[in-house]
Amino acid sequence: MSTLNFDERRDLADIGQAIHRLIADLYPICRSITGNGVRETLAKIKSVIPLEVHEVPSGTRVFDWTVPKEWNITDAYIKNDQGERIVDFRRSNLHVVSYSVPVKANMRLKELKEHVFTLPDHPKWIPYRTSYYKESWGFCLSHDQSLELGDGEYEVCIDSSLQDGHLTYGEYYLKGEQPDEVLLSCHVCHPSLCNDNLSGVALVAFLAKHLSQLPLRYSYRFLFIPGTIGSLTWLSQNEAHVSRIKHGLVLAGVGDPGRSTYKRSRRGDAEIDRAVIHVLRYAEGDHEIQDFSPYGYDERQFCSPGFNLPVGSFMRTPHGRYPEYHTSADDLGFVQPQYLADSFGKCLSVLNLLENNKTYLNQNPKGEPQLGKRGLYREIGGSKDVKLSELAMLWVLNLSDGNHTLLDVADRSGLDFGLIKDASDMLLESGLLREQLG
Amino acid sequence: MSTLNFDERRDLADIGQAIHRLIADLYPICRSITGNGVRETLAKIKSVIPLEVHEVPSGTRVFDWTVPKEWNITDAYIKNDQGERIVDFRRSNLHVVSYSVPVKANMRLKELKEHVFTLPDHPKWIPYRTSYYKESWGFCLSHDQSLELGDGEYEVCIDSSLQDGHLTYGEYYLKGEQPDEVLLSCHVCHPSLCNDNLSGVALVAFLAKHLSQLPLRYSYRFLFIPGTIGSLTWLSQNEAHVSRIKHGLVLAGVGDPGRSTYKRSRRGDAEIDRAVIHVLRYAEGDHEIQDFSPYGYDERQFCSPGFNLPVGSFMRTPHGRYPEYHTSADDLGFVQPQYLADSFGKCLSVLNLLENNKTYLNQNPKGEPQLGKRGLYREIGGSKDVKLSELAMLWVLNLSDGNHTLLDVADRSGLDFGLIKDASDMLLESGLLREQLG
Amino acid sequence: MSTLNFDERRDLADIGQAIHRLIADLYPICRSITGNGVRETLAKIKSVIPLEVHEVPSGTRVFDWTVPKEWNITDAYIKNDQGERIVDFRRSNLHVVSYSVPVKANMRLKELKEHVFTLPDHPKWIPYRTSYYKESWGFCLSHDQSLELGDGEYEVCIDSSLQDGHLTYGEYYLKGEQPDEVLLSCHVCHPSLCNDNLSGVALVAFLAKHLSQLPLRYSYRFLFIPGTIGSLTWLSQNEAHVSRIKHGLVLAGVGDPGRSTYKRSRRGDAEIDRAVIHVLRYAEGDHEIQDFSPYGYDERQFCSPGFNLPVGSFMRTPHGRYPEYHTSADDLGFVQPQYLADSFGKCLSVLNLLENNKTYLNQNPKGEPQLGKRGLYREIGGSKDVKLSELAMLWVLNLSDGNHTLLDVADRSGLDFGLIKDASDMLLESGLLREQLG
Repeated sequence: MSTLNFDERRDLADIGQAIHRLIADLYPICRSITGNGVRETLAKIKSVIPLEVHEVPSGTRVFDWTVPKEWNITDAYIKNDQGERIVDFRRSNLHVVSYSVPVKANMRLKELKEHVFTLPDHPKWIPYRTSYYKESWGFCLSHDQSLELGDGEYEVCIDSSLQDGHLTYGEYYLKGEQPDEVLLSCHVCHPSLCNDNLSGVALVAFLAKHLSQLPLRYSYRFLFIPGTIGSLTWLSQNEAHVSRIKHGLVLAGVGDPGRSTYKRSRRGDAEIDRAVIHVLRYAEGDHEIQDFSPYGYDERQFCSPGFNLPVGSFMRTPHGRYPEYHTSADDLGFVQPQYLADSFGKCLSVLNLLENNKTYLNQNPKGEPQLGKRGLYREIGGSKDVKLSELAMLWVLNLSDGNHTLLDVADRSGLDFGLIKDASDMLLESGLLREQLG
Repeated sequence: MSTLNFDERRDLADIGQAIHRLIADLYPICRSITGNGVRETLAKIKSVIPLEVHEVPSGTRVFDWTVPKEWNITDAYIKNDQGERIVDFRRSNLHVVSYSVPVKANMRLKELKEHVFTLPDHPKWIPYRTSYYKESWGFCLSHDQSLELGDGEYEVCIDSSLQDGHLTYGEYYLKGEQPDEVLLSCHVCHPSLCNDNLSGVALVAFLAKHLSQLPLRYSYRFLFIPGTIGSLTWLSQNEAHVSRIKHGLVLAGVGDPGRSTYKRSRRGDAEIDRAVIHVLRYAEGDHEIQDFSPYGYDERQFCSPGFNLPVGSFMRTPHGRYPEYHTSADDLGFVQPQYLADSFGKCLSVLNLLENNKTYLNQNPKGEPQLGKRGLYREIGGSKDVKLSELAMLWVLNLSDGNHTLLDVADRSGLDFGLIKDASDMLLESGLLREQLG
Repeated sequence: MSTLNFDERRDLADIGQAIHRLIADLYPICRSITGNGVRETLAKIKSVIPLEVHEVPSGTRVFDWTVPKEWNITDAYIKNDQGERIVDFRRSNLHVVSYSVPVKANMRLKELKEHVFTLPDHPKWIPYRTSYYKESWGFCLSHDQSLELGDGEYEVCIDSSLQDGHLTYGEYYLKGEQPDEVLLSCHVCHPSLCNDNLSGVALVAFLAKHLSQLPLRYSYRFLFIPGTIGSLTWLSQNEAHVSRIKHGLVLAGVGDPGRSTYKRSRRGDAEIDRAVIHVLRYAEGDHEIQDFSPYGYDERQFCSPGFNLPVGSFMRTPHGRYPEYHTSADDLGFVQPQYLADSFGKCLSVLNLLENNKTYLNQNPKGEPQLGKRGLYREIGGSKDVKLSELAMLWVLNLSDGNHTLLDVADRSGLDFGLIKDASDMLLESGLLREQLG
C-alpha cells in the first residue's frame, strides 16, 4: 500500500477513547471459552467490523484436544442463613469459577470453604479462576469477605449448564494485493477483566477497522478466539493454509500504564521480531524485549514446533507481572485511553513497516549517483554537517544491492525506518532505485 | 544409563575423605615420567579399580618424539665437610631434579651452586624441577637453606639410573551400551605434589569406581599417564581408535580451595564444553571459564590439530596461578576433602548430563498436547504462577523438534538440566515424546 | 617480501619531519578538483616518487557523472571604495569559493553579502567552501572581518576560468611478486588545508617511497586523485581490473593530535579491517574503530555496492569532528611531525601484517612436535612461567591446520602479530611448518 495513513496519528487520542468505550461496552459480559458470552461479545464487535462468526461443535477433535461442552450460566449466589445473597454473580461474574458445574445445595462453612478461592495478599480483590477441563465448581471472593463468613449454614447455587453445543470464534479477513497474510489474534474468553484481555480485543477490532480503509499489500486475518482451545481449533481447521501467514502478533494486555513489551516469536529473528523491535527502539518511552518462551498466550500454539509460525506477542506489562492481573482490580480504571492509543500507534507503525519493508536495487551501483544534479543534494560543499535526509539516501543507495530490505538498511544505518522509507521514495521518484520483485 | 545415582551425593563427604586418603597413600612415592614410581602408583590405584598397566619400551617412536630411557633413583644427598646429609632425598623427593643423571663427586660451593634451584620469593619452600630431555643433574633446596651453605667442600651424590626400560601407564575401560567413548585423563608423573596432580589421579580413580557400579550409555576410558610423553604415546598407540572419543576431560589440580575452572576444548563449543559450563553455572559457588590455549596439561596433545578431540580441562585454580604450584607447599594440607568432594560431584554431574543428553521428538507437534488430561498440569487455572516442572515440560515439548538436545532445551530455557531431564522423563512416560535415534 | 624494514622505525622521527616539509611545500598551492593547482601538486610529489600523471578530458562520462570543466584562477579580491584590497586571494586561497565563476562587478554590501561565507562560531577563521556542480561565485571571510564591512560600494573580482580542459590525477604502481594489489588512495583537491588532506597526500607519497625500496609480495597502487569525481573517474577507467584490489586504505587527516581512527570497509570484516584493528590494538595510545558508513571520503565510491572493495579509511580525528576542519585553522601548525610519523608507522605495520599474513601447515599435526630437541624450548621444566615466544610457537603449531592465517592465530591467541610472525619464522626454519599455497 502507499502508506498506512499516519496523518491519522493526530487522531490517536480519539482512537484511544473509542477503544476504551468498546472495552466498557464489553466489560459486563460473562465470557468463557464457550457459550453465549462469547457470542454476545462478537455481536458487539460487529458494530466495528463485519467479522464472521464460526461455531465448532462440542466433541470435535482438534489435534490432541477435544472441543469441550458449551458452558452457560444464568445466576449464582451464596445465601447466608438469613437468606441474604452475600455473594452474588449479578454483582461480579468473577465470583464464579469459570466452567463450574451446576450446584444447588446447603452446606456448612467447612464444606463451602473447599470451594472458595481468595487472594490473601490483596484482601479486597476477587480472583479469577477457571476449571475448564475438570468438572468442579467454586466461588471466588475477596479475602476480607471470606474472613467474615460465620459458622452457619449456607445455600449455594450455581445455575449453569454444561452440555453439547459449540465453541464460538470470530474471524475477519481483509484481502490485500498479495495472498501472504499478517495474523492478528486476541483471546475473548475472559469475563470482566479489562486489560486481560478486553484491551487486546478492542485494539484488534480498531486496527482492523483502520486497515479496512486503506490499500494493503498484505492480506490481514484477525482472530477473536478463546485462549488455547480457540487457537488450536482455528489451527486445526485451517491447517492447510497457515503457511500463508508471514507475520503475526498475539495482542493482550495493551491498556495498562506499564511500558510496552514484545516477546519474540520462537524463531527469534523473524521479520516481525525485527520490525517490532525497530519500532519500539525509535518510539517514545521505555520498552522491554523478551525472548520467546512456551508459556504465555496463544503464541504457545502458533509457535508450537509443528507450526513454528513467525508470531510474536505484543503487550504492555507482561501477564502475571502486575498485581491486578486476573483479579477484579483489572477493571475499567486500570486501562486508560492514552495507553490504548499508544499501543494502537505502535502496532500501526509495525504494520506500516511491514507493508513498506521492500528490497530495492540501486540502478547506478558503481559509485554514487550524482544526487546534486537531481536536486537531492546540497549545492555548496565544505561544511561539516550532513543532513539526515541526505545520509539516509546514501545508506539506501549503498545497501540496495538486492540483499537488504529497507529494515536492514534502517538497522545497519542506525536511522529510523521512516527516514529510510522517505529516502527510498525520493530515490524511486528519481529513477535511481527500482523494487526487486519475487 | 537410567541415571548416575545421585542419591549417593549425600555420600559426597565420604568420597572426599576417601580421595584424600588415596592421595596420602600415593604422596611419598617418587614418580617421574618413567620408572618404578609410576609402577608403584598404578599398583596402589589397583586397590580402587582393576586398571591395566601398559609398558612401552624406551626408543619407541611416538610421532615426533621418542620414548626416553627409564629413570630410577634410590638415594641422593649433599653432605657437608662433616659428612652430615644436609640435603637428603629421603626427606623429600623434590630435592632432586627429576631425571638427574647419576653423580658422585666432591665439589666446592661455587660449582655446586650451578646445580642448585631455589625460590627466592618463597624462601621456605622447595621447588620442583625437571630435566627430562637434556642430560643434567641438580638439587632443589629451600632458598633459606641455600643461603646457609658455607664455603667448604661438599659431597654430592645422586644414585640414579637412566637406561633402556619402559614408559609405564595405566588404562581402565568401562564398556557401555555404545562404543562411543568418554575419555578421562590425568597425569601421574609428578612426585610428592598433591594438588598437581595426585588430586586428579585420585579423583579419576574414584570416578571410575563409581561409574563401574552403574549402567552406562557411553563407554568410558580412564588414562593414568605421564604428562606429554604419556599422552603422545597413548595417542600413537591408539591412533586408529581415537575417533570413538566423543567427549573428554583432562583432570588436574582439583583439590585446592580455589573456585572451579574449566578450560574449553580447542573446538570451543563441543558438547563437553557446553555440558561443563552448564553444570558450573547451576552449581554452588563461583567459577571461571577459560578459552582454549595450547599451553597447559595433556589437552595440548588431545587438541593438537591432527586430532582436535573434544577434550577440555577441569581444574580448580589453574596451574601456575597459585603460589604453592610446583613447590613443596603443594602438600597434603593444601588439598582438602571438601574441595575434592566438590570436584567429584561436579564431574559426576557433567557425566550425568552427557549420559542423558538425548534428542526427543514431540509426538504431538501441532499445538500443545493436553497435559491436564494426563495429570501433568494443574487443574485450576487463572493463578499467575506456573510451576517450574510445568514450564520445563512446555519447553521440552516446544523444542523437541529433532534439532535440540535436552542440553539445548536447558540452555535456551534457562532451566537446570535436571529439571529438563525430569520433565522429559514424565513426557516420555506419557507417550508424548520418543527418542530420536541415530 | 622478507619484511618491511622495521629497523627504519628508529628513523620515524626523520620521516615525520620529511612528511611535514612536503606538506609545507604543497601548502600555498590553490588546488581544486581540476586545474593547474593539481598539476603543480603532482609535479612536486614527483620529487619523492616517479608517479604517472593522467589527464581526462572534460565531458568524459564516468558512470552517472561527467568530468566537469577545468577551473583555474589567477587572482581575486574585494576592494573597498578607497580601492584597497580588503580581501585578497593572494593572502589565502580559501577566500574564494572553489569553482567560482569569473566575476568583475561593483556592488553594495547587501548584494555582496549574499556571496559571503563566514564561521560565526570561530570568528577569526576563514571557512572552506566549494560549488563544483552549480555555477556560482563567493568569498569566504573571517566572521570578524565580515562584521567590519561598511555600507559603501565594493569592487568584486574573481579572475577565474571555467572551460573545457582536463581532470588530472596521479598514479604510482609498484609491482610485487603477485598481481594482487593493495590500494592506497588520497584526495588532492583541497587548497591550503593541511590535515585535510595534505597530510594524507604526503603520507601516501612517503609510504610509496619507502615500499619502493623493498621486496614486495603484493603489488601496490597509489592514487592521488580529486575527491569523489577523481575516484569515480579512476574506477570508470579501470573497471575491468579493480578485482585485483585485495586490500585498500583511503588516507586522510593523518597529522592532527587526535587518536588514530579506523573506519571499516563496507564488508566490515575484510582482512584489511582485521589487520588495521589488530595493529591499533597493539599500538601505543588510544584509538577508535568506526563501522562503515556511506558518508566520508572516497571509500564511498570504492565501497559502493557495484564494487564493494575491501577498502577502509585510516585517519586521526574523523572529518568534521575537529573545529579546525575545513577552515584556515587547519594550517601548518595544526599538523605535526610526531603525529605524521605515528600515522606512518601504523600504516607500515598494517602493510607489514598484510605482506606476512600467510597460512601455514603444521608438518607434525598429531601431538606437539618436540621443540626442545630443536633448541626451541627451555631445558629445565617445572617453573610456572612460560616465555611468550614459546607460547607463540605453541599457538602457531596448534592453529596451523590450513584454516587459519597468522592474523587468525594472533587474534585468537591474544598475542601481537609480530610475536606470531617471529614464531612462525622459527618454526619454518626448523621445518615444522610449510606455507600453504593457493
